[in-house]
Amino acid sequence: MTYELDRHLSLTALGEGRYSGALDGGWSVGGGINGGFQMALAGQAISQHLESKPDPVAVSAYFLSAGTPGPAEVAVDVRREGGRMATVAADLTQDGQTRLTLLATYADLGRFEGEVRTTATEPELPAPEDCAGPEDVPDFVLELAPMMRRFEMRFPVEQTGWVRGEPRGVGHLSAWFRMADGREVDPVALLMVLDALPPVTFDLGMIGWAPTLELTAHVRAKPAPGWLKVQHRTRNFAGGTFEEDCEVWDSTGRLVAQSRQLALAPRTG
Amino acid sequence: MTYELDRHLSLTALGEGRYSGALDGGWSVGGGINGGFQMALAGQAISQHLESKPDPVAVSAYFLSAGTPGPAEVAVDVRREGGRMATVAADLTQDGQTRLTLLATYADLGRFEGEVRTTATEPELPAPEDCAGPEDVPDFVLELAPMMRRFEMRFPVEQTGWVRGEPRGVGHLSAWFRMADGREVDPVALLMVLDALPPVTFDLGMIGWAPTLELTAHVRAKPAPGWLKVQHRTRNFAGGTFEEDCEVWDSTGRLVAQSRQLALAPRTG
Repeated sequence: MTYELDRHLSLTALGEGRYSGALDGGWSVGGGINGGFQMALAGQAISQHLESKPDPVAVSAYFLSAGTPGPAEVAVDVRREGGRMATVAADLTQDGQTRLTLLATYADLGRFEGEVRTTATEPELPAPEDCAGPEDVPDFVLELAPMMRRFEMRFPVEQTGWVRGEPRGVGHLSAWFRMADGREVDPVALLMVLDALPPVTFDLGMIGWAPTLELTAHVRAKPAPGWLKVQHRTRNFAGGTFEEDCEVWDSTGRLVAQSRQLALAPRTG
Repeated sequence: MTYELDRHLSLTALGEGRYSGALDGGWSVGGGINGGFQMALAGQAISQHLESKPDPVAVSAYFLSAGTPGPAEVAVDVRREGGRMATVAADLTQDGQTRLTLLATYADLGRFEGEVRTTATEPELPAPEDCAGPEDVPDFVLELAPMMRRFEMRFPVEQTGWVRGEPRGVGHLSAWFRMADGREVDPVALLMVLDALPPVTFDLGMIGWAPTLELTAHVRAKPAPGWLKVQHRTRNFAGGTFEEDCEVWDSTGRLVAQSRQLALAPRTG
C-alpha cells in the first residue's frame, strides 16, 4: 500500500466482527487523537465487514474517552441488513476502554441514483495559490495539531486572522483540502475530512481544543478526484456547547458530505 | 396525569434498564408511528433511568422498522456516566423487533450556563391568528397524519400551497407550535416536536411519507412556556435521499433545539 492513509487505516480481521488496527500518533490533536480519524478507522472496519455495502451513508459517533497513540480494536455488530442498506453498531476500544461508540447505515453509493436539487451554495474561495497554505501555518498550530501535516489545507487569507490574534468573530471557516501525498478521498476518508479543519471557534477567538460530544456525518455521493472544498460554520454557541456544521464539496461542484457535531466550548480565557 | 402526552409517555420500570410502555395509535403517520414520538418514548425511559441527568443533550436514532400501535419496550444501557453527563445506548422494540436504536448523551440542562452567541435568526412568522391552522387542514392530510390532532400548528398562508397542489418548490416550512391540550413542551417532548411538521418535501411538491433513516437531535436549552416556532429546511435533495434540518425557538426567542435527519425521498409521481 502506497499511501499513508491506507497504511493508517489497515486492519486485521479477528473474526466475529472484530478488527485490530491502531490510532497512529500522526493524527494527534490537542492531546488526543482526532475524532474524525477515529471515525474513519471504525468506518473502514465496517466497510470491510459489510463487503457489498462498503460506503457510509450516515454515521453517528459518540466520543466517550480520548484516544491515544497505539493499538485499537473495532467491534462491528450488524443490527439490520436489507437489500440496499445495512445498519450497524460499532465500538472503537483501546485496552478495553471505549473511545467512541457509533451507529451507522452503510450502502453502495454507486447505486444511489436520482435527480439532484441542491439549493446549498458551493463555498467561493480564491484560487488555491492565492490562499494561505501549509507554508503559512505557525508552529503553535502544528504543536496543537500535528495531524495538520497529513493534508494540504488552503484558507482564504481573510479567514486566518486568528493565527495573528485577530479573529473575525464570525464563526465560519472554509478551505481547499487534499491529502499531502496525493491520495484521493473516498467515502470512508470523508469521515475524517469532516473533522479535519480547526474548530470553528478559532474564528470566534477561542483558541483551544473543543472536545466533540457527538458527530453525525451524512455521505451523499462519492467524491470526484481532485481538490475538495470544506466549510465549517456555527450558528449557536450557547451554554458551554456549540454545534459545528461541515460541508464537503468535490471538484465537480457537488455537495458530497454534510455533518454536524456538538462540541464543548474550549477552555480558554 | 392530566395531559395526553404524559399518558402516552408513561412507562413501567421492569428492572435492569428495561421499561414497558406503548406506541399509541394517535401518533400514526403514513402507515407507521411518528419517529419523533418514538424518540420521545425512548427518551423518557432514559430520563427516568438516569434520574439526576434527566435532559437529552444529543440523541441519534436509527430507524430499523416501522412502529405499529401497541405495546413497546425500551432497554437502556449506560455506556458512560460522568459527573455532568451520561451517554447511553437504547433500543425500542415491539414483540422483539427493534423499531429504533439510538445513542444519547443526557445531562441536567439547568446546569448549562454560559454566554449565548447565536447568529442564527429566529423565523419571522405572521401572528398565529393570521396563519393557517388546524381548521384549515384538509381531510387527506389528517388521514395521512392522524397525529396532527395532537397539537396546534399554524403556518404562514404562503407556505401552504402544497395543500392546494401548488407547492412553492423552496424546501422550507415553518410554523407556530403548541400541544392541543396546553401541555408545555419540555426537553424530552422536544424530541417529538423536531419531527412533527410535515416533511419539507411537501414544499417541493412531493406529497408522501418520507421514511427517516437517521435523526440526530441537539437540545440546547429548556424551552420557556408558550408558543414555539418550528422551522424545517432542506438544502440537498439528491440521489434518492434528502437531509431535513429543524430548529425550535421558544417564546423568549431562544434557539432551544436543532436537528438534522436523513430521509428517503417519498415515492410519489
